[in-house]
Amino acid sequence: MIQRLAIVGVGLLGGSIALAARAHGLAREIVGIGRDRGRLDAPLRAGAVDRVTTDLAAGVRDADLVVLAANVLANEELLATAWSAVAPSAVVTDVGSTKRGIVAAAERLALAAPRRFVGSHPMAGSEKSGYAVARANLFQGAIVIVTPTDASDPAAVKTVTTFWEAVGGRVSALDPDSHDRIVAAISHLPHVAAWALVDAVARFEPAAFPFAARGFKDTTRIAAADPAMWTEILLGNREAIVAGLAAFRGALDELERLVVAGDRRGIAEELARLKTQRERLA
Amino acid sequence: MIQRLAIVGVGLLGGSIALAARAHGLAREIVGIGRDRGRLDAPLRAGAVDRVTTDLAAGVRDADLVVLAANVLANEELLATAWSAVAPSAVVTDVGSTKRGIVAAAERLALAAPRRFVGSHPMAGSEKSGYAVARANLFQGAIVIVTPTDASDPAAVKTVTTFWEAVGGRVSALDPDSHDRIVAAISHLPHVAAWALVDAVARFEPAAFPFAARGFKDTTRIAAADPAMWTEILLGNREAIVAGLAAFRGALDELERLVVAGDRRGIAEELARLKTQRERLA
Repeated sequence: MIQRLAIVGVGLLGGSIALAARAHGLAREIVGIGRDRGRLDAPLRAGAVDRVTTDLAAGVRDADLVVLAANVLANEELLATAWSAVAPSAVVTDVGSTKRGIVAAAERLALAAPRRFVGSHPMAGSEKSGYAVARANLFQGAIVIVTPTDASDPAAVKTVTTFWEAVGGRVSALDPDSHDRIVAAISHLPHVAAWALVDAVARFEPAAFPFAARGFKDTTRIAAADPAMWTEILLGNREAIVAGLAAFRGALDELERLVVAGDRRGIAEELARLKTQRERLA
Repeated sequence: MIQRLAIVGVGLLGGSIALAARAHGLAREIVGIGRDRGRLDAPLRAGAVDRVTTDLAAGVRDADLVVLAANVLANEELLATAWSAVAPSAVVTDVGSTKRGIVAAAERLALAAPRRFVGSHPMAGSEKSGYAVARANLFQGAIVIVTPTDASDPAAVKTVTTFWEAVGGRVSALDPDSHDRIVAAISHLPHVAAWALVDAVARFEPAAFPFAARGFKDTTRIAAADPAMWTEILLGNREAIVAGLAAFRGALDELERLVVAGDRRGIAEELARLKTQRERLA
């Protein structure tokens, strides 16, 4: 039982953490922290959080578990402020989509003042954002990656893992570098592809938009993701995304080569191979 | 009321046409035609068609409406056989995803023997195929593009349009060139992107597959489309697909340029613009 859970940023993820913690009776008190007091009204009125504040240091003081749920680069800045306010016994985590940056920031801060940080990435976002779309079961069955390092306190890793499991997550541990490379492949690259597809239609044949059916809509659904959140993700994982894009261009080139060559058998084999690969995901 | 409706290829689309025509009482008799007698058993037993044959010429003889629902290049070959078997009063259409090829084939055939052909493209496919996934309401609310030319008989255009409207389609008319360019943008290019995404993950970081969440799955759902069908589509619409790919690469390059430059404002503006564009589709 957490005595005090502090959530910094009460949007889709932060709000869902509050609702899930409440639903599963995981915390005695839940504090919602945000820059904009107005945005904290809805979770407070709904009882998702017990109290709210715009004062980060005051909000995280005496919390056992602090979850940074703002955008990824903002989390790195918030971490520095939280670091000097939390108790040495507290555990701090985050929910950002890139992990190298914040884990490195935590390790730098720990040199001056030992505190316990373990990165988390619940893969349960949406193209929609804000507390209005938060829900208690957002993490039910979701993959949650935690990114401990050799410097992590095992008890803190256990606290964070147990918390995610308690809200329904399926937890895997990865080192921060592997995490960032894996999410570049499976999440960031598909977002870039979805934005580029929307842009390609606008560039090549804007008259096609009214003919968009389910295929185009599904393929580009994530192009409606929050621009502020994704600007930080793209900047926070630049290197892996650029490497992933090179592989993507290689894959496009190969398909185009087969089409231009009119290689019927080569195309059929390639599409069959990729169909099988895709169907393994179910 | 159609006296005899002949459907060549009783898979997802052909089978759904049979079921929809039956459900709406549009045809007195429905004939299912296919190369493989075994595959015609299911629609016959289900009563979707009244009789079946593997003899194309016999099957289309005396039909008022013939629908070619095999793969796109196969349809072009079947058209030649059907042409010499159908009555001059019959109307022939198809359901293929590319239209320049088959419309040109029909116009060539009409030089020797005038018959009435109007191309159709119901945008109601699926990554699944075969009669097992056919359903009577497949075309309900679906966009159906018909592609008459100056050479088309207005009464035949009306017959085909009325038929698609009767099964729930929202019919638009486009010339074959515009059709092929538009579907290259809104359907063929997204398929190529989906295949390339699956391949990119396999090339760049195959360990990422187990972490695929809803975003990746939606973005690549259509990568499981039928290889035989799509080989013909890619070959049948090569030129427009290659042009669309050039626009797609341009869009990828622009996003990558902003990310590599660390242009926070440029990225945020671009993502906001593309979000707005995507959300217009709803």
